[in-house]
Amino acid sequence: MISPTQTSAALLTDFYQLTMAQAYCELEMNETAVFELFVRRLPPTRRFLVAAGLEQALEHIEQLRFTVADLEFLSQLGSFQSRFLDRLGAVRFTGSVHAMPEGTPFFAGEPILRITAPILEAQLLESRLLNIIHFQTLIASKAARCVVASRGRRLIDFGMRRAHEANAGLFAARAAYLAGFEATATVEAGRRFGIPLSGTLAHSFIEAHDTEEQAFRNFVGTRTGATTLLIDTYDTQRAARLVAALANELRSGGSTRAIQSVRIDSGDLAAEARSVRSILDEHGCGDVKIVLSGGIDEHQIDALLSTGVPADVFGIGTSLDVSSDAPSLDMVYKLAEYAGKPRRKCSAGKATWPGAKQVFRERSAGGEYLRDRIALTGEPPEGQPLLAEVMRGGRRLAPARSLNAIREHCRGEIGALPGLLRELREGPDDYRVTVSDAVRALAESAE
Amino acid sequence: MISPTQTSAALLTDFYQLTMAQAYCELEMNETAVFELFVRRLPPTRRFLVAAGLEQALEHIEQLRFTVADLEFLSQLGSFQSRFLDRLGAVRFTGSVHAMPEGTPFFAGEPILRITAPILEAQLLESRLLNIIHFQTLIASKAARCVVASRGRRLIDFGMRRAHEANAGLFAARAAYLAGFEATATVEAGRRFGIPLSGTLAHSFIEAHDTEEQAFRNFVGTRTGATTLLIDTYDTQRAARLVAALANELRSGGSTRAIQSVRIDSGDLAAEARSVRSILDEHGCGDVKIVLSGGIDEHQIDALLSTGVPADVFGIGTSLDVSSDAPSLDMVYKLAEYAGKPRRKCSAGKATWPGAKQVFRERSAGGEYLRDRIALTGEPPEGQPLLAEVMRGGRRLAPARSLNAIREHCRGEIGALPGLLRELREGPDDYRVTVSDAVRALAESAE
Repeated sequence: MISPTQTSAALLTDFYQLTMAQAYCELEMNETAVFELFVRRLPPTRRFLVAAGLEQALEHIEQLRFTVADLEFLSQLGSFQSRFLDRLGAVRFTGSVHAMPEGTPFFAGEPILRITAPILEAQLLESRLLNIIHFQTLIASKAARCVVASRGRRLIDFGMRRAHEANAGLFAARAAYLAGFEATATVEAGRRFGIPLSGTLAHSFIEAHDTEEQAFRNFVGTRTGATTLLIDTYDTQRAARLVAALANELRSGGSTRAIQSVRIDSGDLAAEARSVRSILDEHGCGDVKIVLSGGIDEHQIDALLSTGVPADVFGIGTSLDVSSDAPSLDMVYKLAEYAGKPRRKCSAGKATWPGAKQVFRERSAGGEYLRDRIALTGEPPEGQPLLAEVMRGGRRLAPARSLNAIREHCRGEIGALPGLLRELREGPDDYRVTVSDAVRALAESAE
Repeated sequence: MISPTQTSAALLTDFYQLTMAQAYCELEMNETAVFELFVRRLPPTRRFLVAAGLEQALEHIEQLRFTVADLEFLSQLGSFQSRFLDRLGAVRFTGSVHAMPEGTPFFAGEPILRITAPILEAQLLESRLLNIIHFQTLIASKAARCVVASRGRRLIDFGMRRAHEANAGLFAARAAYLAGFEATATVEAGRRFGIPLSGTLAHSFIEAHDTEEQAFRNFVGTRTGATTLLIDTYDTQRAARLVAALANELRSGGSTRAIQSVRIDSGDLAAEARSVRSILDEHGCGDVKIVLSGGIDEHQIDALLSTGVPADVFGIGTSLDVSSDAPSLDMVYKLAEYAGKPRRKCSAGKATWPGAKQVFRERSAGGEYLRDRIALTGEPPEGQPLLAEVMRGGRRLAPARSLNAIREHCRGEIGALPGLLRELREGPDDYRVTVSDAVRALAESAE
């Protein structure tokens, strides 16, 4: 019996995956299928996307199994025959997975994951694979824009509270870190993924004291080492003066405690930051850094830094964790081949390219992306093939990559994007992605 | 030791909650705090919101505890003293909770949850309470708009694949059902919450067959009872004729199998639905219903039904599960009182009202909402008080309400909204929410 408040991983799927699986089982359709996962169109506010979530996708694939409790629940629904449920109980993933490494930028139409397996197994993965990869790719892509905008300033994920439930908070922290954020406020993300943690105090702490000064003194007194004080609860400039006095007092007293930074979370951030910087500098606190937060996104980071606002760190919350300007991607998982024959969907506006495909990326001598080509797997390579086999016969071919290794890869790849693709504004994306003649010919023959 | 891929509920919090807790502990600040959870401003595309997520919030509060493994992890971070970690390990929620019943419409500034507890306990709840209630309220509010637009047609949640990770898919199904949806495609949501399940087949099933007709026959053959066929894989009108022929064949053969409906997922849905309806009717299949899906939101439902498009059921996916036009709410959890004294934040644009508050709703004789008033808890009631005590001394005062009971309550309340608030377009919301003189006077005295 599954506890009513525990989640069954296998049942995190759409009902039709199970009715189709029953049909495949009953019809004895056991041939190999190739499914590809890709984004049909980029949101207008994205010039590139960053692949993420593969690690959790592979965990899900490896662990896929229907427990006795799962099968009991399904049996009660009256839609499934016991012969099928027996079969379902024995299902394990036996196929192979090809994928782009996490942290790799990609474009519309390019498969980032390819599943090759008996159709029942491959079909059962659809809903949850999309659910996992869609979300982390969404957030890594948003985070990458913040990283580009920040010009080397530190970025911290503050978004858990308005992320879409628990897992979103957790995996947003992972995806943002992977794309170049430096830390997260979400403690469980620190534990699960080894991401550095950050955060100090909220307005409520200040308000619970009779004076702001007492709150600052009390808080600093309970901290070991350097701390950040939140200074916008009542009057930001007055608070900055209090902080400067306290910082100087600690320093002259030879305390091991120090004020590392101040955080401003409301008001006209540009004006407040400038005036706080002046106050701190005037009082000999040039080493106290300024953290800005409060509804910030990549456009605000860019606007603040373009006008020389003295900001050292940005805390990004809701706009990151819900990818507020583009809260979903048009990501799909589509049949490309079954029983050795190419397959395609011809629905209006949603037609797909048939055949198992590879993405080849050509680079300049300096490593900059020049163009991509979507080709059949058997075509002669032109440039670097982006999808590599990561699982065969249901087993991973290599241990999980460390999150820091993925992050380094992502940093390098974002640096290799043509400059135009790193611009934040909406605009025509002139990066060239072509579909090979062989794919086009196959599409004609498959109709 | 927690498994690296299992989630610790207590660590699903922001790091600063723990640094503040340590300070409260060290400073022996143990007085009672009152925190209130509310939405500062409604998104421009919302005229009302629907409170949801209380059940999961209460589960979280009741179960709050830091395990040995949690404390070990925190200890390694070097920021917390063992004295504090011991105290943290003993923390249980001992306070009280007042809340609006789930399914209740509410407006900007109105507390929907109030926590009264020693400040350390109340503070520790902030991040996860917001995370739980924000998401379900977001989705219930979006779903309620779809329900209003659908004029009694059935609505089904198809959104798990692009929901923000697993829990979002699950709780979106719950929130949508609560607000009036009839079913979900997410199997685990069916198991966890008893929501009716729906779904039949995807394009891949059709494509895996050599002909669409064979796919239809094969699928119907594996089903017991009534089924839905997806008809837009190649040529929707041709598929509609195949379905009509098959439906008539099943009927005349006296089969227990039947085609209940057809689903159209692409193209010009209005034109396709009309032409499919004609084809089905011409062939004596007036009982076969039409399901529309594919990027639908409340505006499209409204536009389709306003022009008389023959649609019986709508499948709503991404736009529902990510609340695409408003993917977050400006929901906050703010200190209103500490140690018996009113508290307020005065930050620019983010000032709060002090004191423990109640929301009173006045209704017409017919039950329609007339106006709301935000008052101090001790003020004489004017109309119906919306927040009721649901937990005292850390214990629930009543068993969980059934999801169907919440759904009935929500249906009644949405029916009691003034007509203008049920309109879908953006516009001035002239529903009157006033703040009592006593609250205003307290704010002046608290500055």
